[in-house]
Amino acid sequence: MNYRLLCRLLGIVCVLIGGSMLFSLPWALPGLANRTGADTPGIEVVEWDGVAALLGSVAVCVLFGAMLIRTGRSSKGAALFQKEAMAVVGLSWVLATVLGALPFWFSRTQIRPGEPVTFIESMFEAQSGFSTTGATVLTNLENPDMVPYCILFWRSSTHFLGGLGIVVLFVAILGQGSAGKAMMRAEMPGPTKEGSMPRMQATAWAFAGIYIGLNLILILIYRIEGMSMFDAVCHGFGTMATGGFSTWNASLGHFNSAAIDYTTIIFMILAGTNFTLLYLSLFDSPRRLFRDTEWRFYLGIIGVLSALIIFFGMRHHDAGFDTFSSSLRYSLFQVVSVITTTGYGTGDFDNWNNFGRGSLLLLMFVGGCAGSTGGGLKVIRHVLFYKILLLEVERVHHPRVVRPLTLGGSPTEDQELRKSIPVYFCLILGIFIASWLILITFEPSTTWGADLNRIAAVAEVMEEADPAADSNVTRRELKEHTLDEKLLDCASAVAATLNNIGPGLGVTGPTKNYAGFSQGGKLLFVWLMMLGRVEVFSVLVLLMPSFWRRF
Amino acid sequence: MNYRLLCRLLGIVCVLIGGSMLFSLPWALPGLANRTGADTPGIEVVEWDGVAALLGSVAVCVLFGAMLIRTGRSSKGAALFQKEAMAVVGLSWVLATVLGALPFWFSRTQIRPGEPVTFIESMFEAQSGFSTTGATVLTNLENPDMVPYCILFWRSSTHFLGGLGIVVLFVAILGQGSAGKAMMRAEMPGPTKEGSMPRMQATAWAFAGIYIGLNLILILIYRIEGMSMFDAVCHGFGTMATGGFSTWNASLGHFNSAAIDYTTIIFMILAGTNFTLLYLSLFDSPRRLFRDTEWRFYLGIIGVLSALIIFFGMRHHDAGFDTFSSSLRYSLFQVVSVITTTGYGTGDFDNWNNFGRGSLLLLMFVGGCAGSTGGGLKVIRHVLFYKILLLEVERVHHPRVVRPLTLGGSPTEDQELRKSIPVYFCLILGIFIASWLILITFEPSTTWGADLNRIAAVAEVMEEADPAADSNVTRRELKEHTLDEKLLDCASAVAATLNNIGPGLGVTGPTKNYAGFSQGGKLLFVWLMMLGRVEVFSVLVLLMPSFWRRF
Repeated sequence: MNYRLLCRLLGIVCVLIGGSMLFSLPWALPGLANRTGADTPGIEVVEWDGVAALLGSVAVCVLFGAMLIRTGRSSKGAALFQKEAMAVVGLSWVLATVLGALPFWFSRTQIRPGEPVTFIESMFEAQSGFSTTGATVLTNLENPDMVPYCILFWRSSTHFLGGLGIVVLFVAILGQGSAGKAMMRAEMPGPTKEGSMPRMQATAWAFAGIYIGLNLILILIYRIEGMSMFDAVCHGFGTMATGGFSTWNASLGHFNSAAIDYTTIIFMILAGTNFTLLYLSLFDSPRRLFRDTEWRFYLGIIGVLSALIIFFGMRHHDAGFDTFSSSLRYSLFQVVSVITTTGYGTGDFDNWNNFGRGSLLLLMFVGGCAGSTGGGLKVIRHVLFYKILLLEVERVHHPRVVRPLTLGGSPTEDQELRKSIPVYFCLILGIFIASWLILITFEPSTTWGADLNRIAAVAEVMEEADPAADSNVTRRELKEHTLDEKLLDCASAVAATLNNIGPGLGVTGPTKNYAGFSQGGKLLFVWLMMLGRVEVFSVLVLLMPSFWRRF
Repeated sequence: MNYRLLCRLLGIVCVLIGGSMLFSLPWALPGLANRTGADTPGIEVVEWDGVAALLGSVAVCVLFGAMLIRTGRSSKGAALFQKEAMAVVGLSWVLATVLGALPFWFSRTQIRPGEPVTFIESMFEAQSGFSTTGATVLTNLENPDMVPYCILFWRSSTHFLGGLGIVVLFVAILGQGSAGKAMMRAEMPGPTKEGSMPRMQATAWAFAGIYIGLNLILILIYRIEGMSMFDAVCHGFGTMATGGFSTWNASLGHFNSAAIDYTTIIFMILAGTNFTLLYLSLFDSPRRLFRDTEWRFYLGIIGVLSALIIFFGMRHHDAGFDTFSSSLRYSLFQVVSVITTTGYGTGDFDNWNNFGRGSLLLLMFVGGCAGSTGGGLKVIRHVLFYKILLLEVERVHHPRVVRPLTLGGSPTEDQELRKSIPVYFCLILGIFIASWLILITFEPSTTWGADLNRIAAVAEVMEEADPAADSNVTRRELKEHTLDEKLLDCASAVAATLNNIGPGLGVTGPTKNYAGFSQGGKLLFVWLMMLGRVEVFSVLVLLMPSFWRRF
């Protein structure tokens, strides 16, 4: 391990993060951040506290970065090996979380009136932004006294930066894990496969161009559809990064516009598409999109699941399913929002029937296409996984028939994938289960305070109605430890952060947020968002002592 | 596929099932089935309805069996190939479910007063018995007018037969799946490995001997500890088969005896132990038991989890955790009962804290040792799986280091297991998820009727207290489709049947049963119990058209 090189590269990352904070400064000016919606105050004077927080954060980033660069200055010209690259990626993510948290912490942004964010909560917000999760601890985004507009802009721009980093670093340069590599090999035959250095740089630039271009187009469309500049930019960032941070408490549902909803649906689908595929269909032939196995499955899942949710949910009028057109609009939006791991809401899907809630919870584990900004397990893994299972079942009664694993008609690198995909599924499952167990054990039940009150109310009614009968049952209902909501809500919160979605069910539902969790719970979520984003391995190897040993 | 041979073998199975029903007949005599406990009526006259039902069932079995044997009589001397063996195993299970259901159906056993079992419910009870699950739809076992004692005995003897079949067929002859094979190879070096036919038959006889011997010893101990003959035999069968059918509504908790509890704990642990290992430690050296990796993990999980549950649960006095000795007794019993997939209850674990409930739910997926009568995924798979994950994470940063998968110091058949174990985990997960989704979608919410009443009561209180505020929330609570209990209870019911445990959480909790589910739900559980028991593949291949094609 070349520690000096590591320091220099991490120093550069610090300076870049600091520099990017400067773009949030203009929004502190009066008038600029004024937004659609009459009842929200625009700001009348410069938000000096926000400015000070941003400048202070920039200073910390630049100083710390300079220190790191100075430490590693003798490493110029050293070659970057795979090991150093992995360490840089993993540690950059940690640095981004800590440094990105500073503006929130310095500005003493409030999660509830009179309750400034702790450093853990600031890290939660920053990690949620960079990992393009979109989960939030802020309960009121609309009051500039609680969250200065320039800080709100920094919050949304972490999505943009995170998405850019993913597209350039993970997709173009690292090929994003085994699934991404398999795709790239299938899609880009010939010399591009292994990618020489200049070639990789060209790809990275092209991908960055597409990403920024799509952001600009979307911002323009939002502007035309009636959003203020501030809202258009923030929601553009949130959509294209498959993030999901909004500037309104009601998320995208605030605008209540079918045009905005359908625009967002289309751009979320694009953001969840493999960037290699977008690139090829842009510069080669658009038909490539529909010839791609993963993309066809991706659209297929969206279509079939939306139809099923409409079919099973049509009678639930209070979920917005009163006409076919509104059913289509709400269900399609939510399915796309969850499968692409964006997490925007236009309605309260926690109010849907159990088929809808259950399938959205499962959809969290599907995720976007490999090589997109979407999180989760990725569609391609599910496609390959299903094929692997079929082959294994067949092998039981035909042990001697050897059939290759195919994708779109051509065989893929068989034995490696056949092992690594089930292993990855199980690893995610293991992390999910362990986190769930930790959360249900250590998270205090007062987080579900509202439900405790409800249970107390029931006990009262039941005892009044019938003082003799079954007072054991009544008392049992009162016990905090029989809170079924807790088991389910914790499961959905872990799923929503590990897969970088954002909102879950129950206390973390689309109309609620993560503010109620304890500090320990929030720290766990920070860790899960990071793990999910880098597809687990890149962070886990950093924890192995043997990784750091020189040999 | 030799269909004639198949018919003949299945015919023999039918006749054997019919013959085994005859052993339940004596318990219809007055006096014989009288039981401990003053308030339960013994029977005064011969239970003619039970006798008629049993004799009718025997007649159906024998006639149908004779027909099948006649059809296949020309196949004498034909060789049994792997394909035929698999078909016989899978179809025997189907036959046992249908034929074993007849005594319940013919005797018009009642699930609630005045409500005789349907054929699906009879199949549920029979499948639950043969698969040694122990889930029940009968709400009152103590009234001989609702369930004749001789039918109750048939119910318990399905456990004995199921356990015997598993030990002889799956363990001794088929080697029970890849995990069992790996164990057998590790444990029985030399010529025993592949097993010639006479050798296999000798092993089968030895295993059957151990199984029946342990049953007899346990029945004797139960008798000494004060159970009636009827109770001792039924609970002996339930324990050694890791089944869990009791003859009392309060399960083993009825006796409220520490001696019986600890006896049952010891015999459940033995029943969850690899029979090959039991055989070797009996005829070779008892120290083999403690040298075995899987068995050490198995005891380790039991010890650590019981300790954690005592530690986190000590303050919950109403769960029986008021002194250390009672905490130890209840938590150890329940952990052993769930890990061995027996499912007996001595207290209401649904009343434990969330750590206890959550970890019991997860423990359902652990299961006993490979090659035992216990269900679930088996301890050895988890041990190997953990090692496979570690090796995979290491491979990310040391791609060129090739390390073998070891078990107890010696390498195992590497590549095959490395792939098949994660695939098996994922297959079980897939079945679990699909069944959960089907259940939450199609199971009517009236199954959770009691909770709906509770929610209605809350709505009333809230509206009375504050007629203006938040009436939307109140109405939402009323909606059947926001029943969080349903999502969790369905998950636990699917886990409890797929892993052959029996009781789950909530509506299927240890003090409740499966009677409330719809007929469709019960049919799904029958299917899940069968799938879980034969470790999925043996049943799934029967559904593939290519399996039945001659070639």
